[in-house]
Amino acid sequence: MASVRIREAKEGDCGDILRLIRELAEFENLSDQVKISEEALRADGFGENPFYHCLVAEILPASGELLGQGIGSKIIKKVAEVALDKGCSQFRLAVLDWNQRAMDLYKALGARDLTEAEGWHFFCFEGEAMRKLAGK
Amino acid sequence: MASVRIREAKEGDCGDILRLIRELAEFENLSDQVKISEEALRADGFGENPFYHCLVAEILPASGELLGQGIGSKIIKKVAEVALDKGCSQFRLAVLDWNQRAMDLYKALGARDLTEAEGWHFFCFEGEAMRKLAGK
Repeated sequence: MASVRIREAKEGDCGDILRLIRELAEFENLSDQVKISEEALRADGFGENPFYHCLVAEILPASGELLGQGIGSKIIKKVAEVALDKGCSQFRLAVLDWNQRAMDLYKALGARDLTEAEGWHFFCFEGEAMRKLAGK
Repeated sequence: MASVRIREAKEGDCGDILRLIRELAEFENLSDQVKISEEALRADGFGENPFYHCLVAEILPASGELLGQGIGSKIIKKVAEVALDKGCSQFRLAVLDWNQRAMDLYKALGARDLTEAEGWHFFCFEGEAMRKLAGK
C-alpha cells in the first residue's frame, strides 16, 4: 500500500508540476495545448493574488503499481476540505468524455455531470480570437 | 441605438447583480440553484483576494428593445481586454446547449466549443457530497 501525504504546493514544485501537466496532456492527446513554462507557473501561482492554487501528493509507493491506491480520491477529499474552509459552496472538475475511469470515480464520490444532466458546454476564447476581440 | 458604458462593478452594485443572476437563472430554468445572498456577493467579490471580478454594462436604451444592440459582444470584448491585460492566455464561458443564440454569438466572435470539439464535461461537487468528502 502506498503512503500518501497531500500538502500545498511550493514554488520549488513548479518543475515537477509542469512535468505532470505534460504527462496528463499526453494521456489526453492534447500535448499541443501545453504552452505554459515553468517560469509562468511560478509567476502565476506564487505572486500576490495568485491565479491558481495547487495541492501536491507525495507518494512513497510500496510497489511499482500506483493506480487503484485511492490517491485520486484522497486528493479530491482534500480539495473538498480546502473548498469548505474557504467558504466555497461547490467545486468543479473538467473531464474528457472518453475518460471513463475518471468519470466513474467522480460519480462514485458524489459529483454530478452538469454537461450530461443540464447541457452545459465549455466555450473557449484564446490566442488570435482573443487579441482580435480586444483590438490588440 | 442604446448607449452602453462598461465599467468594473462596485460593492454597491451587488443588489442589481443578484437581481440579474436571478433573471438569468429564470431564463435558464435553474432558479432553484440560486442560493447566494447579496451579503455573500459583497463578501466574495469585494474583500481581499476576491473570489470573482465583475463588469457592469450601464445602458441607456434609445428604445425599449435591448436585444440585438451588440451589448453581449461589447461585454465579451471588454472581458478579452481585461484578460489580456492580466496576462491570461484564454478565457472560458459556460453555456447551455439549448441556448442557440448565445452559442451562435460566441462562435461568431471566435470561441471554440470545447465540449463539442474535444468532449469536455463539467463535473460538480456540492452540498452534502462535498461535506461528506471533507468528513464534515
